Amino acid sequence: MNVLKCNGERLWDSLMDMAQVGATAKGGNCRLALSAQDLAGRELFMSWCRDEGMTLGFDPIGNLFARRAGLDDSLAPIVMGSHLDTQPKGGRFDGIYGVLSGLEVVRCLNEQGIQSQRPIEIAVWTNEEGARFTPAMFGSAVFTGSLPLQTALDARDVDGISVAQALEATGHAGELAFQRAFDAYFEAHIEQGPILEDNGLPVGIVTGGQAICWLDVHVQGQSAHAGTTPMKLRKDALFGVAQMASQLEALAEAFAPKGLVTIGQLSIAKSSRNTIAGSVNFTVDLRHHQDEQIAAMEQQVQERFAQIAEARGLALEIHRHWLSPATPFDADCVAAVRRAVEALGYPHQDIVSGAGHDAILLARHCPTTMVFIPCVGGLSHNEAEDIFPDDARMGCDVLLNAMVERIQR
Amino acid sequence: MNVLKCNGERLWDSLMDMAQVGATAKGGNCRLALSAQDLAGRELFMSWCRDEGMTLGFDPIGNLFARRAGLDDSLAPIVMGSHLDTQPKGGRFDGIYGVLSGLEVVRCLNEQGIQSQRPIEIAVWTNEEGARFTPAMFGSAVFTGSLPLQTALDARDVDGISVAQALEATGHAGELAFQRAFDAYFEAHIEQGPILEDNGLPVGIVTGGQAICWLDVHVQGQSAHAGTTPMKLRKDALFGVAQMASQLEALAEAFAPKGLVTIGQLSIAKSSRNTIAGSVNFTVDLRHHQDEQIAAMEQQVQERFAQIAEARGLALEIHRHWLSPATPFDADCVAAVRRAVEALGYPHQDIVSGAGHDAILLARHCPTTMVFIPCVGGLSHNEAEDIFPDDARMGCDVLLNAMVERIQR
Repeated sequence: MNVLKCNGERLWDSLMDMAQVGATAKGGNCRLALSAQDLAGRELFMSWCRDEGMTLGFDPIGNLFARRAGLDDSLAPIVMGSHLDTQPKGGRFDGIYGVLSGLEVVRCLNEQGIQSQRPIEIAVWTNEEGARFTPAMFGSAVFTGSLPLQTALDARDVDGISVAQALEATGHAGELAFQRAFDAYFEAHIEQGPILEDNGLPVGIVTGGQAICWLDVHVQGQSAHAGTTPMKLRKDALFGVAQMASQLEALAEAFAPKGLVTIGQLSIAKSSRNTIAGSVNFTVDLRHHQDEQIAAMEQQVQERFAQIAEARGLALEIHRHWLSPATPFDADCVAAVRRAVEALGYPHQDIVSGAGHDAILLARHCPTTMVFIPCVGGLSHNEAEDIFPDDARMGCDVLLNAMVERIQR
Repeated sequence: MNVLKCNGERLWDSLMDMAQVGATAKGGNCRLALSAQDLAGRELFMSWCRDEGMTLGFDPIGNLFARRAGLDDSLAPIVMGSHLDTQPKGGRFDGIYGVLSGLEVVRCLNEQGIQSQRPIEIAVWTNEEGARFTPAMFGSAVFTGSLPLQTALDARDVDGISVAQALEATGHAGELAFQRAFDAYFEAHIEQGPILEDNGLPVGIVTGGQAICWLDVHVQGQSAHAGTTPMKLRKDALFGVAQMASQLEALAEAFAPKGLVTIGQLSIAKSSRNTIAGSVNFTVDLRHHQDEQIAAMEQQVQERFAQIAEARGLALEIHRHWLSPATPFDADCVAAVRRAVEALGYPHQDIVSGAGHDAILLARHCPTTMVFIPCVGGLSHNEAEDIFPDDARMGCDVLLNAMVERIQR
C-alpha cells in the first residue's frame, strides 16, 4: 500500500491559530456553542475551507458542512468532522482536532490532485459539549433524529437565550436536510483518557462506544445516637454502603479490564457527626464494551447489594436511571483505519470510546468509526488539555489514508 | 437492708401533669430553655416543692435549686436533679424524669418523717438541651466552671434574644454561688439508648460517661472521567474511603462491645455521577469506656487508614477535632446505687452513659452518679419518646434508697 503523509506542521499551525479564538488566561479555549467566539472560530475555519475551494452549508440546527465536490456530486458524501465549540474552560483540541484533521486531509487531497467520485464533507456539529445548551451532542442528535428539532430550538442557556435566538443572531441556520445519506463518517479525536499514553502508543483504532448503565441506589437503615447505641443493635446504612462499594470494586476486577465501575455521588440524609447514618443515596456508573456483559454486571450488582442489605437488616432500592447500549463501529470503516495504521507502521491498539462523541450518534445513521490520539495525562475538559504535535500528525496520517481507501472503493 | 418504696402512681401523675405544659400535637413536649413554656413547667415544679416545705433559689445562670433543710443546714447538700427544658419536638421524660424522681424522693422522706443532717436539694439545670442556646449542658457547665458566665449570658437564640435578656424576662437569675460545695449528686435519667430494653432490665447502674474522640478525615485521589479511565489507572477516593469504613467497622469488633464507631458525615467534593471521586471528607466518632482504649482505637484508625491510602496512592489527612476523656463516676455513689438495687431485688446491669448529661459535668465537681431506666425502642429527642410506669417506679425506688443510704452516712 502506497501511503500518503499529511503536513504535520500545517496541521499544528491551524490548531494553534484556532486556539487564538476565545483563548483563556490559562492556555485553554472558551468558545461556547453559537457564541461570538464560536462564530469567530467557525469563520476562521470557513475561510480556510473557501481557500480549498469548498462550498459551505448549514442545516436548521446550525450544523456546518464544508463540501469538496465529487466527480459525481449526486452521490452520498464521505464525511469527516467533529466540533469547534468548547467547555467554558475547555482545551484547544477536544473536537477541534477532528475538524482540522479533516481540513488537513482535504488540503492533502488538493495538493496531490486526488479526485473522488463521491463528494467529501467536513461536518462541524453544533453544541457538542452541551455546556451552553443541554444535552451534549446536540447538533448530531438533531441531525440523526434522536432529538426533535423544536425541542432543540427551544432549549435555553443560563441567560434565557434560546437556541433559535442564537441561530438567528449567528445566521448559521440553513436548509440542508437532516438524515441525508452519508457514505461514511470518520471522526478523529483526542482520547480524553489515559490509555494510549499509558501504553505509549500514538494511535487508537476505535472499535465502538461502550455500554453505560446508571443506577440510583437507596439504602435505608435506622438513624440513632452514636453514643448510646451498641454496635450490634445498629442498622448503620453507611457501613452497609461501604461494603456495597467494596463489592462493586471487586466486581470491576471480575469484569476486568473492560468493566468500569464508579460511585460518583453519595449522600447521607440529615447527616450529623454523632448520628448513625439512617439513609444513604448513591449513584453507580457501570460501563462495558458489550451489552451482555453490562447486563451481567447490573445483575450482579443487584444480587450482591441485596445480599449485603439482607444480612444487615437494611432496606434496599435500586432504580435503573439510564441504559445506553454499546455502539459497535462499522467493520469496514474500522478495517480501513486498521489497514491505514498498519501500512503507515505506526504503533497502535484497539480501543473503545469511553466518552460520548458525535460519532456515537452518527454510527446509527451511517458506517462510522473514529481515530484516537493520546492526550497528556488523559486530561480533557480542562484548560491544561494538551497533545504532542507528532501524535497529531500521525493520527491525521491515519485519517488521510483511511479516507483515500474509502474514496477508492 | 430495710428498703423503702416510692409512690409510683404519684410519680407517674406528676410526670403526666408536667407533660401538659408545652404539650405538642404528637404527644411530646416543647419547653425551650427560659421560654414561657419552660417557665410554666418550672412554676408547676416549684409549686410542688413549696407544698413539700422546700425553699427555692437560683444562681446567676438560672439554675433552680429546691432545698429541703437539713438538721445542720450549714453542711453541703446532697443533690438530685436534671432538667425540665426540652428539644423543640422533645419527649416527656428526658430530664423531667430525673427532676420529678428527686421530688418523689423528697415526698417519701417527708411522708416517712425521715430527717437528714445534711440539706437535700433538687437541681433544675438551665438549658441542658442546648436547643435554644448552645452549647448543651449549659447551666451545669457555668455552675461547674467550664463555661464562663459572661459567655453564657451573651449567647443568643435564633431570634437574637440573649440569655441575659431571657433571664431578665423570667426572673430566674439569682445569687446562689457557682461551684458551692455538694456532698454528692445523683441524677436519674432515661437511657436514651436501647441497651436496657434489649436486655429486658428496668435499671442501669451508671458507672460513668464514655470517652469520645472525633476525627476529621480527608482523602485525596484524582477526579477523572468515569468512562475513559481504566480501573488500574484510577485513584478513586471513594473506593478508598469505603475500605477505610469497612476497616473501621472491623475495629469496632476488635474493641467490642465497649468500642463504638460511627461515620456520621461524608461528602464527595464536586461530585457528579460520571466523575471518579477525587476528594472525600468524612467524620469519625469513636467512643469507649476507657481512655487508654480510645487512644488505642485512634492509633489503629491512623495506622489502618494510612495503610489503605498508601496502597491506593491516595493522600490522607486525619485531624483530631475533639477528645473528651472518660468520666468515671464516684465509686461510693455507684456502690450506694448498687446496694439499693440489690436490696430491692430489681434486675439490673452496669452501664456507661453514651449521651451527655449534667452529671458528666457535675462529676468533676463532687461525688456523682446516675441511675438509668429504659426508654421504648431507645428513642429520645423525639415526641414519641416513651417509658413504662413500672420502670419509672423502680428507678425511683433505687434513687430513694441510695439517697437514704447517703443521708445516713
